[in-house]
Amino acid sequence: MTDAWLPTLMTDSPEAGFELALKLSRLGVRFTQPDAAARDRLRPDYADDASALIASSQVVATNFQTVAAANNYWRS
Amino acid sequence: MTDAWLPTLMTDSPEAGFELALKLSRLGVRFTQPDAAARDRLRPDYADDASALIASSQVVATNFQTVAAANNYWRS
Amino acid sequence: MTDAWLPTLMTDSPEAGFELALKLSRLGVRFTQPDAAARDRLRPDYADDASALIASSQVVATNFQTVAAANNYWRS
Amino acid sequence: MTDAWLPTLMTDSPEAGFELALKLSRLGVRFTQPDAAARDRLRPDYADDASALIASSQVVATNFQTVAAANNYWRS
Amino acid sequence: MTDAWLPTLMTDSPEAGFELALKLSRLGVRFTQPDAAARDRLRPDYADDASALIASSQVVATNFQTVAAANNYWRS
Amino acid sequence: MTDAWLPTLMTDSPEAGFELALKLSRLGVRFTQPDAAARDRLRPDYADDASALIASSQVVATNFQTVAAANNYWRS
Repeated sequence: MTDAWLPTLMTDSPEAGFELALKLSRLGVRFTQPDAAARDRLRPDYADDASALIASSQVVATNFQTVAAANNYWRS
Repeated sequence: MTDAWLPTLMTDSPEAGFELALKLSRLGVRFTQPDAAARDRLRPDYADDASALIASSQVVATNFQTVAAANNYWRS
Repeated sequence: MTDAWLPTLMTDSPEAGFELALKLSRLGVRFTQPDAAARDRLRPDYADDASALIASSQVVATNFQTVAAANNYWRS
Repeated sequence: MTDAWLPTLMTDSPEAGFELALKLSRLGVRFTQPDAAARDRLRPDYADDASALIASSQVVATNFQTVAAANNYWRS
Repeated sequence: MTDAWLPTLMTDSPEAGFELALKLSRLGVRFTQPDAAARDRLRPDYADDASALIASSQVVATNFQTVAAANNYWRS
Repeated sequence: MTDAWLPTLMTDSPEAGFELALKLSRLGVRFTQPDAAARDRLRPDYADDASALIASSQVVATNFQTVAAANNYWRS
């Protein structure tokens, strides 16, 4: 990975912040299981399993808390 | 998806904030499993399974924390 | 549901705040599974299953965090 | 239950705060399953199951966050 | 237990704070299952089970949030 | 372990902060199961199991909340 994989938590909008939360969630998985082939083998499991899908969205929600706080909730 | 899917975290009321938390929870699922047909196949699983239903409401609770903080808890 | 289902996060006391957290938890379930008959079929599952009961109280704890912060912890 | 079941989140010490977090956790279970006999039937399950025990301590940790923040972390 | 089991959340360093988070996690388990023999019977379960081990570290992470906030993150 | 395993929560960048969150997550596992051989036996389980992988990334997300707050979100 290059140095540029997480340059900042600041985003221009809530949408971009939500996408950053998704990226952080994927980074957490990638660093825990660095083997891309192993991750690819698991993807069908969690993409087609309701519990895994909900658990994934819990991670996203947690990361979105962080990003939203970082951006002071994009208050105008 | 259009650009307008998450324009702001600000809402006029706690009710609207809770509905936004529900929307954020659905967005987390949608981005994790972008295939609508696959999501539709899973829906019966988590709608009729107590554990999945509770886990879903945990995601909603987490997102509501974010939205409520963003709105300074709608304090008058 | 009428407009009055979540008029405010402010409560007069910690007890009322805890009850509001319980209400928020039930709302999360209700909005995820809007079919009352389906919810009624699931109720025995999570009322008589230790894991589901603990998971439910985790949702309540998360929502109580939100309500308690909203009320500035009812500090006198 | 009498009116006095949660008069305040303020405690004199971290120990008393941790005990309050335990009480809040038990209240969450009690309100979700109000039938004391049903709770008693479940108690052996979660007292003798590692997953349930850890999940219970997650609820306690979440409630302790709330109580500790309420007390400004008992900073002197 | 003596009165001195949780005298303060303040620690001199992040390391000591992390150790306090571990202690809080163990206290949560101990108070939920006060029978030491029962806890000893469960220990092999969660020490040799990946899910239980990860769930335990989730509790530690939650308690570390509390301790780190209490110490203002040991900012110098 | 030497004294230097967690000298500070301050990092120069979000990337370094995310790596610290990963380190904190591994420390939580290490302190819960101090036996390195036992951890090595478990590693295949959680590296090749979707649920365990997602649960691990939940711990990382929680620790990243702590580190990000400690660093005031690396706001410039």
